[in-house]
Amino acid sequence: MDLMKIKDPSFLKGLSNKQLEHLSQDIRQFLIEKLSFTGGHIGPNLGVVELTIALHKCFDSPKDKILWDVGHQSYVHKILTGRADQFDTLRQYKGLCGFPKMVESEHDVWETGHSSTSLSAAMGMAIARDLKKEKSHVIPVIGDGALTGGMALEALNHIGHEQKNMIVILNDNEMSIAPNVGALHNVLGKLRTAGKYQWAKDELELLLKKIPAVGGKLASTAERLKDSLKYLFVSGMFFEEMGFTYLGPVDGHNFESLFENLSYAKKTEGPVLLHVITKKGKGYRPAENDTTGTWHGTGPYKIETGDFVKPVSTAPAWSQLVSETVRKLAREDDRIVAITPAMPVGSKLEGFASEFPERMYDVGIAEQHAATMAAGLATQNMKPFLAIYSTFLQRAYDQVVHDICRQNLNVFIGIDRAGLVGADGETHQGVFDIAFLRHVPNLVLMMPKDENEGQHMVNTAIKYNDGPIALRFPRGNGIGVPMDEKLHEIPIGTWEVLKNGKDAAILTFGTTIPMALKAAAILEKQGYSIKVINARFIKPLDEKMLLTLLNENMPILTIEEAVLQGGFGSSVLEFTHQSGFHHVEIDMMGIPDHFIEHGSVDKLLEEIGMTTGHVVDRLNNFVRKKQKRA
Amino acid sequence: MDLMKIKDPSFLKGLSNKQLEHLSQDIRQFLIEKLSFTGGHIGPNLGVVELTIALHKCFDSPKDKILWDVGHQSYVHKILTGRADQFDTLRQYKGLCGFPKMVESEHDVWETGHSSTSLSAAMGMAIARDLKKEKSHVIPVIGDGALTGGMALEALNHIGHEQKNMIVILNDNEMSIAPNVGALHNVLGKLRTAGKYQWAKDELELLLKKIPAVGGKLASTAERLKDSLKYLFVSGMFFEEMGFTYLGPVDGHNFESLFENLSYAKKTEGPVLLHVITKKGKGYRPAENDTTGTWHGTGPYKIETGDFVKPVSTAPAWSQLVSETVRKLAREDDRIVAITPAMPVGSKLEGFASEFPERMYDVGIAEQHAATMAAGLATQNMKPFLAIYSTFLQRAYDQVVHDICRQNLNVFIGIDRAGLVGADGETHQGVFDIAFLRHVPNLVLMMPKDENEGQHMVNTAIKYNDGPIALRFPRGNGIGVPMDEKLHEIPIGTWEVLKNGKDAAILTFGTTIPMALKAAAILEKQGYSIKVINARFIKPLDEKMLLTLLNENMPILTIEEAVLQGGFGSSVLEFTHQSGFHHVEIDMMGIPDHFIEHGSVDKLLEEIGMTTGHVVDRLNNFVRKKQKRA
Ligand SMILES: [Mg+2]
Ligand SMILES: [Mg+2]
Repeated sequence: MDLMKIKDPSFLKGLSNKQLEHLSQDIRQFLIEKLSFTGGHIGPNLGVVELTIALHKCFDSPKDKILWDVGHQSYVHKILTGRADQFDTLRQYKGLCGFPKMVESEHDVWETGHSSTSLSAAMGMAIARDLKKEKSHVIPVIGDGALTGGMALEALNHIGHEQKNMIVILNDNEMSIAPNVGALHNVLGKLRTAGKYQWAKDELELLLKKIPAVGGKLASTAERLKDSLKYLFVSGMFFEEMGFTYLGPVDGHNFESLFENLSYAKKTEGPVLLHVITKKGKGYRPAENDTTGTWHGTGPYKIETGDFVKPVSTAPAWSQLVSETVRKLAREDDRIVAITPAMPVGSKLEGFASEFPERMYDVGIAEQHAATMAAGLATQNMKPFLAIYSTFLQRAYDQVVHDICRQNLNVFIGIDRAGLVGADGETHQGVFDIAFLRHVPNLVLMMPKDENEGQHMVNTAIKYNDGPIALRFPRGNGIGVPMDEKLHEIPIGTWEVLKNGKDAAILTFGTTIPMALKAAAILEKQGYSIKVINARFIKPLDEKMLLTLLNENMPILTIEEAVLQGGFGSSVLEFTHQSGFHHVEIDMMGIPDHFIEHGSVDKLLEEIGMTTGHVVDRLNNFVRKKQKRA
Repeated sequence: MDLMKIKDPSFLKGLSNKQLEHLSQDIRQFLIEKLSFTGGHIGPNLGVVELTIALHKCFDSPKDKILWDVGHQSYVHKILTGRADQFDTLRQYKGLCGFPKMVESEHDVWETGHSSTSLSAAMGMAIARDLKKEKSHVIPVIGDGALTGGMALEALNHIGHEQKNMIVILNDNEMSIAPNVGALHNVLGKLRTAGKYQWAKDELELLLKKIPAVGGKLASTAERLKDSLKYLFVSGMFFEEMGFTYLGPVDGHNFESLFENLSYAKKTEGPVLLHVITKKGKGYRPAENDTTGTWHGTGPYKIETGDFVKPVSTAPAWSQLVSETVRKLAREDDRIVAITPAMPVGSKLEGFASEFPERMYDVGIAEQHAATMAAGLATQNMKPFLAIYSTFLQRAYDQVVHDICRQNLNVFIGIDRAGLVGADGETHQGVFDIAFLRHVPNLVLMMPKDENEGQHMVNTAIKYNDGPIALRFPRGNGIGVPMDEKLHEIPIGTWEVLKNGKDAAILTFGTTIPMALKAAAILEKQGYSIKVINARFIKPLDEKMLLTLLNENMPILTIEEAVLQGGFGSSVLEFTHQSGFHHVEIDMMGIPDHFIEHGSVDKLLEEIGMTTGHVVDRLNNFVRKKQKRA
């Protein structure tokens, strides 16, 4: 059918299973085609085609509330709620968001991006419904990977206790973003393996053969019984223990089973967990065959071959550079242990993992545990490398403060995807880390100007033994500079003068350095001499160099691809005023006080007012004023 | 025995159970006496006397690592590791810390304060041990309450998966800080009820009677079997499902059972969970009989009667004021729902709970879930009041950013214990909230000058419908001002001139206002006229009033009982420079960039340099300079 004509999901009510199967095919074809141009989360969405259709047929959205945990699997939902015509703009500036978004549709009742939030939100909605004495269903859809997140477990515990009506759909595809980790996964694995009734039957026969005469060594018999019978009762036991009615596992690509179980769930009092087995990437061979998570989210690809259409960069990817440098150093320092919360691929830790399998821990989606486990390692004189995205480090803020920094432990935090990330949008922008880290005592925070300095900073972090140290680096690739063979350490708290000048100074670091240098060159032609400083240590500041600038009463422009409020610029201001230099002109450029949506990083920077042109204008202001005064 | 003579726990090895029982009595008496003068966490410590002795007898600390989750139950451990002589200084300035502290003893291998961190830390230690090929035990001791914290559940999941050797002691006293909440508690309840083997026996008999002929309706039989047999297998099933060997439940006050189980645990491969039942407050009647959590942590008390020796304050406690004002407003606004993560007593929500039981949710130790559940409620046009301590709000930073503020939802966050908290020390100081909140878009953040303004701010927050709003208020009592009968709203982003002046201005809020007024009065006598402004909105600033000051080129001193870095003062600096007022002298007073230990708030402020005298000095600097220039 013509997906473009869909206005809302009501048309589903009249369709037969056969027709729904055709619709599923149409949607798959649509997704495979559209995403081949735009890129996006192809794997997760191909996996939930039937499930999404079934949910929208069985329930009445938006009266019934469907919550998409993480939200990257909401494309089918977007198609069924009238947004097929916007898929050409998916994840592009001012285009369709890759995650649920309330302004796009009344059917998007909860916005996601970070994982494991849907159960808590659903609980809030269920409480509200009951207080208002309304009748409706609340249906969070959560993946097996997201279920290992602490807040999801907190919510399970509370929902089970309160016994509110709620239908939790466990979308179990055996794979979160990378292959799953954790005991919970083992539980799910057991449930997944076979239909439980057949199993029950076999086990029951076994049991009958084994039952001893009553009396005798009952205790040990009970123990043995427990082992042999375990699998009979294990089905859903974890969830039943938490207070849920467990249904499933059901085939998530079979409409008949889905409808049967969903209608049973609708009639059940109290919280229900419906365990649905789906296949990530279903219907597109390259994505179906993916075992590493490569097809979780992709750029554009060629449909026939599954080859990725990538702008070729000869410069190393930042994640790769950092992880591979850690790997190199791990050959000499056996205290190094790498930790990732479910991002071994994104953090490019595959090489490290294959060389040092016993020193690599993927803890699943569990940022808090990852950070504090790193602290535990550090108490034993190990050197943990916590590889984590800026936006996900937000989850571990308290653990960074209370466990790592308060105890002043030698943890090396590699903050990946720092700064604007582009297409993933406002839930994923790595723009807060400076503001939420720089006030934490004991922490060193740095950012390199290029990949060569980046490798030396990794070395610096590994060699540093005076407490926690964090290296932030951007998404994407380096800039292609020559790489030194031999690593050295960069003295903590030292900046670097990249270009001398006497009319004004730019203090900046990382991705915004090229812009600063370009602006300085333009101003040079206009007759102004601008100093450009690589402020590679965000904390501690290079107080000596800064004092020199202040003593010269040089106007200063700070630039950061991070929130202005409480950021690097404000740190420079604090130092300036605390040192008694109240008269120095300081201007700050950075990300303003609102959330930044999706779009290419260049577009976003333009919107924010962070371009070479803007830098030139801001500096012009300064130097003209200075001339006037002079 | 003379507890003062204990140097380390090695003496325990030679003692008989009888002697250990005498020692237990001595320790209980010691604690009851000492804490009657100093106050402290009496309930938790009386509950773990035998358990702590047993652990130190069975294991070799510090080679074997005992980790105290939360850590307020570590007093017995401190006595056994040679610190009895310091109990007169417990929780006092430069005295014995109320929590484990590495600088105090090599036996304190992990510092705690916030709950649920011990399992992750233990996992780090276990990994380190195995990589170093050392032989030792890692023994985290975690309460039933702390186990509901998401990071503990993340850790359980990972530990179960990795199968490292570790002995988790579940110290189950049926009560965390307030009575426990959650499905997990129900599971523990089942385990607690009876010895499992007797149960197994009964159930097995029942089973044999019920077993049907093989064949027939096996599926439904299996279902029934499941129900009847559930309790046989439920014992420890939750933990066994997670990959642990479950032992217990054992009586935590019986040395024989403790030793039996601990030695079994020592021999067991892989992670073990030993379920120990203890009685909080054991051995001291008033604490034993406590059902509400009053005896969890106390000030000084009279031993005979159990009466608390409290300096009587006629001013209302801040928590009481805020919660009771919310309660009053809840009578008119049925959208108000109160949420607490395990602190109904501390947050003084008992009154609200008894009047509106269906609108009060204690979610257990689960700050992340609490915050996002509040967000879920707000999506449904409810008005959630999230009562949370400043230090524990750190746990929900990402939820505040990603779920509450990004979606701009009407959540009212009551930030209790903001500022220095005193005796609980560095893990509990509420000094980071301004720095970690003010850079989050959409959030309004305020702090009242007194309890009367406090009640109007609560009203303001409840009436506010443009997004999230947070009210921070200190530990302890108000200052005893008259209270208005009728509540009004305070216009968002407006400050208040408390005293006019023309030589300099102080911008401050909350607890530091009296100090500012005193300093101004002193300077008045010296002939200087100081303006004092109640900067009650930390965000947004009162830009209009600030611009007036800036236009007058008046020197400004900002004062905040919070970290300076990225705090309120830096916010004033940012605005000043962004508005082009580069020449205004601004000085900032606040908490410097290191963690602040325990002690009375007055002592701590003195140490930091935040007293009336310091304010006078800092202002004198300004006004003298100004005169010179004039
Ligand atoms: Mg998954
Ligand atoms: Mg407890």
